[in-house]
Amino acid sequence: MSGSMGMNMRVNIFGESHGAAVGLVIDGLPPGLPLDLDFVQKELDRRAPGKSKTATARKEDDKVQVLSGFFNGCTTGTPLCAVIYNKDQHSRDYSELAAKMRPGHADYAAHVRYQGHNDHRGGGHFSGRLTAPLVVAGAVAKQALAGEGIGVYAHILSIGGIKERAFSPLGEPEENLKSLAARPFCVLDERAGQAMEEAILAAKEEQNSLGGVVEAMVLGLPAGLGEPFFDPVESRLAHALFSVPAVKGVEFGAGFALAAMKGAEANDAMYYDEEGKVRCFTNNNGGLTGGLTNGMPLLFRVAVKPTPSIARTQATVDVVKKENCQLTVTGRHDPCIVPRAVPVVEAVAAWQLYDLLLNAKKWVKQ
Amino acid sequence: MSGSMGMNMRVNIFGESHGAAVGLVIDGLPPGLPLDLDFVQKELDRRAPGKSKTATARKEDDKVQVLSGFFNGCTTGTPLCAVIYNKDQHSRDYSELAAKMRPGHADYAAHVRYQGHNDHRGGGHFSGRLTAPLVVAGAVAKQALAGEGIGVYAHILSIGGIKERAFSPLGEPEENLKSLAARPFCVLDERAGQAMEEAILAAKEEQNSLGGVVEAMVLGLPAGLGEPFFDPVESRLAHALFSVPAVKGVEFGAGFALAAMKGAEANDAMYYDEEGKVRCFTNNNGGLTGGLTNGMPLLFRVAVKPTPSIARTQATVDVVKKENCQLTVTGRHDPCIVPRAVPVVEAVAAWQLYDLLLNAKKWVKQ
Amino acid sequence: MSGSMGMNMRVNIFGESHGAAVGLVIDGLPPGLPLDLDFVQKELDRRAPGKSKTATARKEDDKVQVLSGFFNGCTTGTPLCAVIYNKDQHSRDYSELAAKMRPGHADYAAHVRYQGHNDHRGGGHFSGRLTAPLVVAGAVAKQALAGEGIGVYAHILSIGGIKERAFSPLGEPEENLKSLAARPFCVLDERAGQAMEEAILAAKEEQNSLGGVVEAMVLGLPAGLGEPFFDPVESRLAHALFSVPAVKGVEFGAGFALAAMKGAEANDAMYYDEEGKVRCFTNNNGGLTGGLTNGMPLLFRVAVKPTPSIARTQATVDVVKKENCQLTVTGRHDPCIVPRAVPVVEAVAAWQLYDLLLNAKKWVKQ
Amino acid sequence: MSGSMGMNMRVNIFGESHGAAVGLVIDGLPPGLPLDLDFVQKELDRRAPGKSKTATARKEDDKVQVLSGFFNGCTTGTPLCAVIYNKDQHSRDYSELAAKMRPGHADYAAHVRYQGHNDHRGGGHFSGRLTAPLVVAGAVAKQALAGEGIGVYAHILSIGGIKERAFSPLGEPEENLKSLAARPFCVLDERAGQAMEEAILAAKEEQNSLGGVVEAMVLGLPAGLGEPFFDPVESRLAHALFSVPAVKGVEFGAGFALAAMKGAEANDAMYYDEEGKVRCFTNNNGGLTGGLTNGMPLLFRVAVKPTPSIARTQATVDVVKKENCQLTVTGRHDPCIVPRAVPVVEAVAAWQLYDLLLNAKKWVKQ
Repeated sequence: MSGSMGMNMRVNIFGESHGAAVGLVIDGLPPGLPLDLDFVQKELDRRAPGKSKTATARKEDDKVQVLSGFFNGCTTGTPLCAVIYNKDQHSRDYSELAAKMRPGHADYAAHVRYQGHNDHRGGGHFSGRLTAPLVVAGAVAKQALAGEGIGVYAHILSIGGIKERAFSPLGEPEENLKSLAARPFCVLDERAGQAMEEAILAAKEEQNSLGGVVEAMVLGLPAGLGEPFFDPVESRLAHALFSVPAVKGVEFGAGFALAAMKGAEANDAMYYDEEGKVRCFTNNNGGLTGGLTNGMPLLFRVAVKPTPSIARTQATVDVVKKENCQLTVTGRHDPCIVPRAVPVVEAVAAWQLYDLLLNAKKWVKQ
Repeated sequence: MSGSMGMNMRVNIFGESHGAAVGLVIDGLPPGLPLDLDFVQKELDRRAPGKSKTATARKEDDKVQVLSGFFNGCTTGTPLCAVIYNKDQHSRDYSELAAKMRPGHADYAAHVRYQGHNDHRGGGHFSGRLTAPLVVAGAVAKQALAGEGIGVYAHILSIGGIKERAFSPLGEPEENLKSLAARPFCVLDERAGQAMEEAILAAKEEQNSLGGVVEAMVLGLPAGLGEPFFDPVESRLAHALFSVPAVKGVEFGAGFALAAMKGAEANDAMYYDEEGKVRCFTNNNGGLTGGLTNGMPLLFRVAVKPTPSIARTQATVDVVKKENCQLTVTGRHDPCIVPRAVPVVEAVAAWQLYDLLLNAKKWVKQ
Repeated sequence: MSGSMGMNMRVNIFGESHGAAVGLVIDGLPPGLPLDLDFVQKELDRRAPGKSKTATARKEDDKVQVLSGFFNGCTTGTPLCAVIYNKDQHSRDYSELAAKMRPGHADYAAHVRYQGHNDHRGGGHFSGRLTAPLVVAGAVAKQALAGEGIGVYAHILSIGGIKERAFSPLGEPEENLKSLAARPFCVLDERAGQAMEEAILAAKEEQNSLGGVVEAMVLGLPAGLGEPFFDPVESRLAHALFSVPAVKGVEFGAGFALAAMKGAEANDAMYYDEEGKVRCFTNNNGGLTGGLTNGMPLLFRVAVKPTPSIARTQATVDVVKKENCQLTVTGRHDPCIVPRAVPVVEAVAAWQLYDLLLNAKKWVKQ
Repeated sequence: MSGSMGMNMRVNIFGESHGAAVGLVIDGLPPGLPLDLDFVQKELDRRAPGKSKTATARKEDDKVQVLSGFFNGCTTGTPLCAVIYNKDQHSRDYSELAAKMRPGHADYAAHVRYQGHNDHRGGGHFSGRLTAPLVVAGAVAKQALAGEGIGVYAHILSIGGIKERAFSPLGEPEENLKSLAARPFCVLDERAGQAMEEAILAAKEEQNSLGGVVEAMVLGLPAGLGEPFFDPVESRLAHALFSVPAVKGVEFGAGFALAAMKGAEANDAMYYDEEGKVRCFTNNNGGLTGGLTNGMPLLFRVAVKPTPSIARTQATVDVVKKENCQLTVTGRHDPCIVPRAVPVVEAVAAWQLYDLLLNAKKWVKQ
């Protein structure tokens, strides 16, 4: 069964790329949470296509409408439904794709799973368009987290092998992090960003596409969030992040590099800082030990594969004729999805962390 | 809330390292599944400590007792409870650790989360000992999967930077895979294994520890398992894998390497093979597209950090005296947890895949 | 957390009486289920207000729009969202009710639960209007059940103490049951129905309201549906039925009358009928033994309290002024909700039974 | 899938009547909750068989062993497992019952559901013995609730048609309620109790059995517990209560009697009492309006059918020979389960209410 995740702030998303709408229902939001719908719209705009030459030409104004759960500027505490109607659909582009399965896409697996009944147009429910509702959920969670002094930030760490500097594991300065959301291309170092953009355009030119890595940091988290077996913070974040289309790897702190370290190096020795707060001298664990937050900045990275939709002719199967065939995917596609993935990664992390924060509140002595 | 995971085969684990027992309850197993309890015990023995000089000296015979849900050699379909009583506990080793938080461990985060009430002895509920019930769950799932022609295999890909060859992404020969479980040190190439063992002993000698990477492959999976938002195969496997202590990274197929590939290379072009089965020419997606199995071998890797328990003196905090302190962790510890993590990774994957397989059965036309 | 129920066909409802819309998202529907949306609309029309002088004058055409999960006349297998926009709202009727709590309604309890942030207009999320999405869920489930030969039927057993004859416990003739849905007033005996209608009008005349009992029967269920601890059929049906506003009692088979029977009378002795099917000589257990269906007709009754909204002046509290006060509820209300509850009871039962049927399919040998 | 219920205090029960043990795992308990295990044992003793001539002669000392989640006299916050080993089993009594289905029992339905693989001995997992773990869960929840000033009480309202006086809906004096638990036969009026006991013995004499009604009251609940769609207090209590074997009806407040009342009578008019607390003049709604607690005493009644195991010969089916047959159930059985159901009803209610109380804590401003 698909469509639902969350222990306390549960999100249900729905919709197809070329159906009437995409949207979500959020259960479990506390009542009286002030929501700035303009901020929600701004977050959606960060994800929206059609903004630059490095993205798909599909234009969706992506205006979110809240149908329930919102009254007098605040959440009511009852389910909040938000809908984004689809508009700029060119469904004719997709007719051939009912039979010919696009390599690297869900098409073939979904054809089997849904016994041929899924809406194949534009990937249907598997479309990256379904990340718009995720951004809405994240924009709600971010506002709730901000009220608790918690900020969620991400940048493009690399695209097509071109890297910019990583966040400082002990805590990237907050002004750097806060500056990222305003940038159309989320990097700290604009020169690196320029090189990435050029690489994207070059790939597009050769009818190809690029992937990359998104790195995220969360500041302000209290220690002790998360659960052992089976809800460590890593488990919940990875679960949600791997639900974002094209994500194929997730690592926390030093991640895969930890596998080559020795314990004396990897362990993050602890101390009380001047304010009596427990800190670590290093942050190889990315703010998570035993699956719980330890008060250090939360740090993780997400590998995004290159957009599978490319204009080149590819070998594939025709499931109607049951034969091998060639396929040239037309339509409008992002040569690199990574820049638009940044607000999605932030959104998904914000939602999961707020969910865990609500979990922790149950046990606070009142 | 912790303790439970699974949509159809739900597993609840319980226990503390130095409490009376560790164990699990499994709900949702179909009735009439023949279970070989000797196989369950053998899987537990693969994970058990005390077997070699590269592992902890703690000896637990880890005999599993099934208390319910098993009758006449088969599952009954009602909850199956299995218990492993703790025996060789040296709880005196841990008295100091109620106050002094071991770096790299759950200790400090758990102290905050549980408001000082968690059983700190040997890590309590956060102990690697809790992976024994996971192995039991996996041994049950493996038998169910075997009945459907599905096999789950893993090996040590690297320890302390020393690598052996990776599985062939298009499908490691099954005889190679099947030979792994019988080996005390799960590698294809015994020379690489020997180098790894030497590295572990050297690390132990210097009061240090090593991490590594476990690679897993699943053969025989039908196409179409998994769910979009929020239960892709990647999401569920990563969720469960990140619940295994010391795991800090998970990647599928080419994983993080995909971030530097181009689409034309990364896409796995498809064809019908001679038997009319859909196959891919490459397997960069690790058998998963759109979050669903596509019929190719499932392939993933897991980064395991070096054992945080080392005999060296480390800087840390004393949460009782609220002051900085030095800590020398005594007791018996694995200088490298990776070899014992192999059956755990297999177990967790088997459980999650069987869970998804049961999900798929609901929709089969009968 | 509210808003979600179901193990396999999960329903999430949202909306407020005087908000933009009410609706639902259904996860877990199998793909390829043919859906007749006209039937869905007809079921909604059975529940709709404004049809007769015994119901509220509020007119809602209650047109359902499907936003997702439906393609080429069938379910896709991905989440199905349906929305019913609100139209004939007279929100001015409710201004006084932000402070003065209507007796018998959710008002005061919701004011506390939602810390004053709930949408109080027309009961907000607690309104009987939220049963419209339930009817949509039921109309989908009924079509799925019909494909398996299962029919769900209900009638008005009593209103204000005026009874009609009960369904025959061993199985009301199906033609009788099938005739009910077409009637505006769901009774087998039209004279009894007429007496009930007169009682309703008399109650309305005296600014009062009536309650009643709805009785339901399900034919065609296979034996073996349901689960012990904690999902017996009784548990799941009662859970869903008690979520319908105004329901205060649920009983199965002979129900409360069983408490005064002896075992020899209450036990339903069994036999093989001529077709080799197991049957019972009596059906005091209402088709359920051990919490599972036993192949006999499922039979249950639901007590519905009189509509709490009455035009008489009542004593209550003003939570703004924190003082006792008098309240005269104006606006448009049903003097008796029971006739409109009939399709809701059917809907809720159909949904839960289909959910359990999907559960059973997982274990069928394929 | 069976075996698990609860949003915040989740209970998983396991075991079979004639297996090794019955038990439970509780997830989600807050850490630091002091638990008196003697109280748990006392509650179990209230439910235990073998105490009087009105109950089964099966003697189980029912000693509970806590295997995890308990440390230094308190909950740890990690899963608590408790086991009760089975001892006085006479499994030979049940050999005939693998084929011959006992009327009124789960036998036939379970035989179908579990495809013949369920443990049939003594009803297996469907046995009333599984209520012992429920009592353990309730004994934990009662201690947590007591810390919040909440008490859960029940008595035998009727057996075989013999009634004692009902609790006062506006609040039975607490000293009356508190006196009940100490009595072997839970009634307020001992003469009524004596008449009930005599009726039980008379039924036993004639190889018959009796049912009855249990009435429960909960004092001290804050207003605002529960959730609309789909977790009203009625829904959750009924869900759990209908999971108790033999329960066939549940009603709240005036329950089915409400169906014959008029609104002006049924509505519970409200006022501020001298302490500024909102109260109702009547309590027909049983402390629940809109599915939420309203601060009045919670009141409900549960119909328990007569024990299906009777010594008389009954007609039934032999599922092995596929033929009609006669069955005389031997073994040891309660001629009336109602007295032993009282602590079970209390336990189940305590658990569900504590679960909802934890839900409410998430939203408290801290």
